[in-house]
Amino acid sequence: MAETEFPRPIVTVDIVLLTLREERLHIALLPRTAEPFAGVAALIGGYVHVEEDSDAEAAVARILKAKAGLSGIFFEQLQTFASVDRDPRDWSVSIAYFALVPQEVLDEAGVALELRPVDAAGELPFDHADIVRAARERLRGKGAYSTIPARLLPDIFTMSELQAIYETVMGERLDQSAFRRKINDLNLLEEVEGEKRQTERARRPTTLYRLKAPLAVFDRRI
Amino acid sequence: MAETEFPRPIVTVDIVLLTLREERLHIALLPRTAEPFAGVAALIGGYVHVEEDSDAEAAVARILKAKAGLSGIFFEQLQTFASVDRDPRDWSVSIAYFALVPQEVLDEAGVALELRPVDAAGELPFDHADIVRAARERLRGKGAYSTIPARLLPDIFTMSELQAIYETVMGERLDQSAFRRKINDLNLLEEVEGEKRQTERARRPTTLYRLKAPLAVFDRRI
Repeated sequence: MAETEFPRPIVTVDIVLLTLREERLHIALLPRTAEPFAGVAALIGGYVHVEEDSDAEAAVARILKAKAGLSGIFFEQLQTFASVDRDPRDWSVSIAYFALVPQEVLDEAGVALELRPVDAAGELPFDHADIVRAARERLRGKGAYSTIPARLLPDIFTMSELQAIYETVMGERLDQSAFRRKINDLNLLEEVEGEKRQTERARRPTTLYRLKAPLAVFDRRI
Repeated sequence: MAETEFPRPIVTVDIVLLTLREERLHIALLPRTAEPFAGVAALIGGYVHVEEDSDAEAAVARILKAKAGLSGIFFEQLQTFASVDRDPRDWSVSIAYFALVPQEVLDEAGVALELRPVDAAGELPFDHADIVRAARERLRGKGAYSTIPARLLPDIFTMSELQAIYETVMGERLDQSAFRRKINDLNLLEEVEGEKRQTERARRPTTLYRLKAPLAVFDRRI
């Protein structure tokens, strides 16, 4: 490689920020403040700042804080979108992430984001629709064998809330007793001692749980 | 975003090229021809050429052809490694891919690559050891519910060869009858009509198979 200098692409990070509203997965968008697509709702994102960000995750954390008022939420690298034609400005690399935030945490952040159902997000600029599609597939796939969907819940939840979030993420109904058996077998949860919640439906107060390990992984088998 | 121009990072693609040698997964490396780390065996990779490559996959295909003499082999995006300190030259983005090539195809390409067992690859420059580790984990994870491991075999193979490749990739022994039942249930293979192979061990010629769909995915379940 005598190839010392080449024209360099644009490098950005983009974040598919997902939350729940009325038991549906929603995506949080922000109107763009500059061309191209000024004023159009788009994924939360921005340039990597090479003098400020130590790595791509630092760029994501900085942008989530600056543009959505969020810190400490779950995010994970999704996929990188890199081509000559995804951005009208230049050859462009978007290192895409997906992030999950409980509804309550997003509300407390107090930043006016535009929420749209993820399965009816409408038109999006650049290749953001492709990025959203990839995030939905990843979440559906990983949801089946990880505790990632629980990141959409507050720290403390009931078993019914947990099952509902898996059903939402996976887009299918799960058998209640099979779900509870699986969750028990996997030993992912711990009871929150001394706390119960009285729900309208149940006669007795409902047991509350929290995640034991942050990211215990379901077993996989051929 | 009034942020029109920012210093841009280096953008490269790096490829974890895996093949089989003596029933073990091996990684194919190339000695670097320029600084940094000139002469040191490293992942096959190079700069994205924004004037030539339409997207990251085009860069991968170009580099596999130019540096390893390979075309038409299976590759898939792995993960992007992006930080201020992974490359001594500058803030750097490596869009990493893993690629699988049957031993015979690599031999025919006739390029002298350095093959090392993937679980004993020794020291590697940059963060290439991290990239190799991510590729092994991905392959082990995806191996369990995809036909990806079969990409290490020639187009036509026996059921025993197929089981052996899954065992190699997943690093565990699989029960033969359970494996065959699963493979049959999933309807992934078709018999190669009129072709059998006489092996030393078997009394009768062995049935040969090929993949029916290029990438049928195993079922997943909570």
